[in-house]
Amino acid sequence: MTPGYTGIIPPMITPLKERDTLDREGLECLIDRMIEGGVAGIFALGTTGEAPSLSYRLRREVIDETCRIVDGRIPVLVGITDTSLVESAALAKHAADCGAGAVVTSAPFYFPAGQPELREYIEQILPGLPLPLMLYNMPALTKTSFSAQVVEWAMEQEKIVGLKDSSGDLVYFRKMLRLASSRRPDWSLLVGPEELLAEVVLMKGHGGVNGGANLHPRLYVDLYEAAKAGNLERSRELSDQVLALSQSIYTVGHYGSAIIKGIKCALSVLGVCDDFMASPFHRFHDKERAVIKDHLQTLGITS
Amino acid sequence: MTPGYTGIIPPMITPLKERDTLDREGLECLIDRMIEGGVAGIFALGTTGEAPSLSYRLRREVIDETCRIVDGRIPVLVGITDTSLVESAALAKHAADCGAGAVVTSAPFYFPAGQPELREYIEQILPGLPLPLMLYNMPALTKTSFSAQVVEWAMEQEKIVGLKDSSGDLVYFRKMLRLASSRRPDWSLLVGPEELLAEVVLMKGHGGVNGGANLHPRLYVDLYEAAKAGNLERSRELSDQVLALSQSIYTVGHYGSAIIKGIKCALSVLGVCDDFMASPFHRFHDKERAVIKDHLQTLGITS
Amino acid sequence: MTPGYTGIIPPMITPLKERDTLDREGLECLIDRMIEGGVAGIFALGTTGEAPSLSYRLRREVIDETCRIVDGRIPVLVGITDTSLVESAALAKHAADCGAGAVVTSAPFYFPAGQPELREYIEQILPGLPLPLMLYNMPALTKTSFSAQVVEWAMEQEKIVGLKDSSGDLVYFRKMLRLASSRRPDWSLLVGPEELLAEVVLMKGHGGVNGGANLHPRLYVDLYEAAKAGNLERSRELSDQVLALSQSIYTVGHYGSAIIKGIKCALSVLGVCDDFMASPFHRFHDKERAVIKDHLQTLGITS
Amino acid sequence: MTPGYTGIIPPMITPLKERDTLDREGLECLIDRMIEGGVAGIFALGTTGEAPSLSYRLRREVIDETCRIVDGRIPVLVGITDTSLVESAALAKHAADCGAGAVVTSAPFYFPAGQPELREYIEQILPGLPLPLMLYNMPALTKTSFSAQVVEWAMEQEKIVGLKDSSGDLVYFRKMLRLASSRRPDWSLLVGPEELLAEVVLMKGHGGVNGGANLHPRLYVDLYEAAKAGNLERSRELSDQVLALSQSIYTVGHYGSAIIKGIKCALSVLGVCDDFMASPFHRFHDKERAVIKDHLQTLGITS
Repeated sequence: MTPGYTGIIPPMITPLKERDTLDREGLECLIDRMIEGGVAGIFALGTTGEAPSLSYRLRREVIDETCRIVDGRIPVLVGITDTSLVESAALAKHAADCGAGAVVTSAPFYFPAGQPELREYIEQILPGLPLPLMLYNMPALTKTSFSAQVVEWAMEQEKIVGLKDSSGDLVYFRKMLRLASSRRPDWSLLVGPEELLAEVVLMKGHGGVNGGANLHPRLYVDLYEAAKAGNLERSRELSDQVLALSQSIYTVGHYGSAIIKGIKCALSVLGVCDDFMASPFHRFHDKERAVIKDHLQTLGITS
Repeated sequence: MTPGYTGIIPPMITPLKERDTLDREGLECLIDRMIEGGVAGIFALGTTGEAPSLSYRLRREVIDETCRIVDGRIPVLVGITDTSLVESAALAKHAADCGAGAVVTSAPFYFPAGQPELREYIEQILPGLPLPLMLYNMPALTKTSFSAQVVEWAMEQEKIVGLKDSSGDLVYFRKMLRLASSRRPDWSLLVGPEELLAEVVLMKGHGGVNGGANLHPRLYVDLYEAAKAGNLERSRELSDQVLALSQSIYTVGHYGSAIIKGIKCALSVLGVCDDFMASPFHRFHDKERAVIKDHLQTLGITS
Repeated sequence: MTPGYTGIIPPMITPLKERDTLDREGLECLIDRMIEGGVAGIFALGTTGEAPSLSYRLRREVIDETCRIVDGRIPVLVGITDTSLVESAALAKHAADCGAGAVVTSAPFYFPAGQPELREYIEQILPGLPLPLMLYNMPALTKTSFSAQVVEWAMEQEKIVGLKDSSGDLVYFRKMLRLASSRRPDWSLLVGPEELLAEVVLMKGHGGVNGGANLHPRLYVDLYEAAKAGNLERSRELSDQVLALSQSIYTVGHYGSAIIKGIKCALSVLGVCDDFMASPFHRFHDKERAVIKDHLQTLGITS
Repeated sequence: MTPGYTGIIPPMITPLKERDTLDREGLECLIDRMIEGGVAGIFALGTTGEAPSLSYRLRREVIDETCRIVDGRIPVLVGITDTSLVESAALAKHAADCGAGAVVTSAPFYFPAGQPELREYIEQILPGLPLPLMLYNMPALTKTSFSAQVVEWAMEQEKIVGLKDSSGDLVYFRKMLRLASSRRPDWSLLVGPEELLAEVVLMKGHGGVNGGANLHPRLYVDLYEAAKAGNLERSRELSDQVLALSQSIYTVGHYGSAIIKGIKCALSVLGVCDDFMASPFHRFHDKERAVIKDHLQTLGITS
């Protein structure tokens, strides 16, 4: 048995025209560009997609449109992370109706759940889900990490098919990989931070859910392929390019919002889609946009 | 000018019968009991009300029913804290339609906002709000504290009428009190942690939004009155009773959920309302319920 | 039985002339000024005293000179906090030889100890101590708070005589006060953050170990007396003065070092002692010194 | 130019007979065993060496004896991390007198230094050091990470020769590696967490300062060699063995002390040296020792 999800699955940004309004043309352009870049799937409504900042109506529209545009070319994974189980379940149903391939949830993120509570939460949401579930470990934003014990339990649930880990803690990732190799060889273990994609795949991880793949899908796909093939020299080289992108595009803004702002601005500079941001954030001003433009040139990224 | 909200304004628990189902009889009983206990207002859909765990449909029902039951006897404040500005604004509109007196919001809590972003967020939501706004400082759960600078700016906005501070940091509270005394004598500064109610009111703070007032409203109202009157001896005595309640009822469970679970269980033991909890939490088991029962007896709290 | 240590016990700054060199004249001037201001004791080699940054030779000299200058007028408490039990014990012996009244220790602060380890640490150091011991709760710098269980155990040890709490968490302080009132009425519970001195003493706490008392001892002593006498009006007024001092003198610098730098600079401006700082810190530059000078004038603090 | 320190440099545990007493025979046995295992150097008085818990007299004895026993066979690096610059400098002088090859310092760890303060600290200590300096990034215990800016500055100081990073943050490590490759090709970048040794060396990092190399030096040396040679299959296999060691030996105890306790206990079981621990810790009890014994057998580690 092999993992169901491998390769690069970009956590798609949500192109917006203005508050509560999807940039549909931008979305189409973005998705086509990523598919042409060779990505293995699309993860809509994740952190990079600003999902928690969007209204539920808009989240449904994102699911509708993404599935319509993708049109079965690659699987669509849909983030249903929420503080309310009822709302998460409703989103999952909508995702299934639209033809998504799986749903993804992190811990509910207002109340920090204890580990037994976190396990129970997953236990409660699982039966009602019409699609396979991927767990999403994002402790910096949810205040809670899926413990090894909870992940071991999750590996016993057939409907749970993998873990996306955005903790940045590669020791944790390695431990989960070791667990899965003996218990669930069909589980997918995907890494969030793109700066670690090379390391993860060289050590037999299954791929990455990397924000930068919105912007330069081919780079991440090439890196994944090189590392999977054990081509060390090329893995290092491409990983350094990823690092260069991350150290330039993601560091123009301040605060935690700098990464999403950087990606959206760069996509706007490239003419792919609008860079409007959902509250509490706003798009870069002209000055920062000029810096992004320079960085894109230096990095050799063009539309 | 005097502050608009003073005294005890309990952060009301949300009585539930089962998942997504309000315990309406329990809600009526709970509200009447608090009003008889002398509370000055009710804060619905706060942290203690498990608001983020409830569906939007249920949140609207809570607003409807609370306003209907209260029926103008005291003001109702409605929590609209959310990660999506659009959903917050919709809740605020509903609250106004139902006759609520004010809305309350903390920082959007998935993405940790930088201070300028936090200010901008309030700036963006403010114009559309049909009701006065009270800020809610809850850094342990929102990852962000309203800085002195942002609060100073907020004091310049007529529509913002106060701050509820649940940081537990009394130095912060004192600084805000000092700011308000010169800039906005009509602002209300209310404290979250009930163990600090005496101190806060003795130092000229305006009241408390204390979870325990769901359970024993009279105790908190009496303490507020004693401290307001400068009756030190009685303030200490009643504050020790509050401490005794907090150190018993709130410490039966583990994890951060122990406080809400304790209050709900105690109210159920007293026959006031059901103790069903929204996911990711669950009510206490029989063993813990027995401990709560004992504690209530020791504390002399009866229905 | 009444607590052994009550009132204001300033955590004395350590006047330095240059690296590893005590400013002896400054020390004498500082101590005499504090005693004239009415302080109830002196706490040498605490956090404000930069103790961990001083060589052991210099720490011994500070103990020697402080005890010599104080000359029995008030008790001297000596900080022995260290990462090495052997060095702590040696300092305690030296303190006893010089005539100190008690020693003070926080948790060893490099390795974050688990609570049983912390208790064991105190258990191990206790027998060798030639003086009574006061615990010092300083979780922001030691990574570990003395839990209620460990403090309860400590209350059973005759040689342990109190707790200085610098956590800033008044709920914690109130709980410890409640514990002590039934178990060790002779324990001293002293608060670190001076902004909370009024509240603490109004609620029957025993005093403060407040950095600002280096600078303006009389203000803190007056506040302590007013609060102890239950004079609410005067307590609020003096507490506001303390707040004004803290919000001006302590906010000139950046980083955690701003408080100590501010106090030292202000004392230097007043001509009391030198403001040299031990590595990793340095004294304020001229520009910041000018701001401190202005603040002192506004606050009406003169030598 | 190539880095001066490459390969496996174990952070040596400090064998103790009892409080403040070195186990000299054990130390000799331990060092000889590591050298036979192929290590490239020894790092005495680091975190794993419990340095902050040892008296200065004992730290000097550890330096004396280590240098005497090693006798020039491999370089000795000496940890001088301290809260007092004066004590750090004195230890460095002693290390030089004994023939050590370099000294190692992290940030002073009581007061959390701001980045400019941290840089200044290094600036102040540097001129007096008689040996090359390696920086040691250990934010979990020092509260401060060496920022990219400070490391860039450090790369301009000839006397600073590298960085040991124990942050566990491989993104950080990769960034430092990228910086060094263009600015200081002679810098050594060594990783602390042994679970990341394979990844780090595959990506051209220079080696590891891994606690487990006290116990099973050959395993870590083999892994380093395999990864350096680009042997992916063997790197994964040996890295899994390291993970198995770490997930068994280091998880018997609770609290942060579990790793050092596990290594010392295992060495004692193997007959290499005593497992006495400096306060605030204590050695494992019989029950835990039995578990360690089992784990050693499962792992196939023998004396």
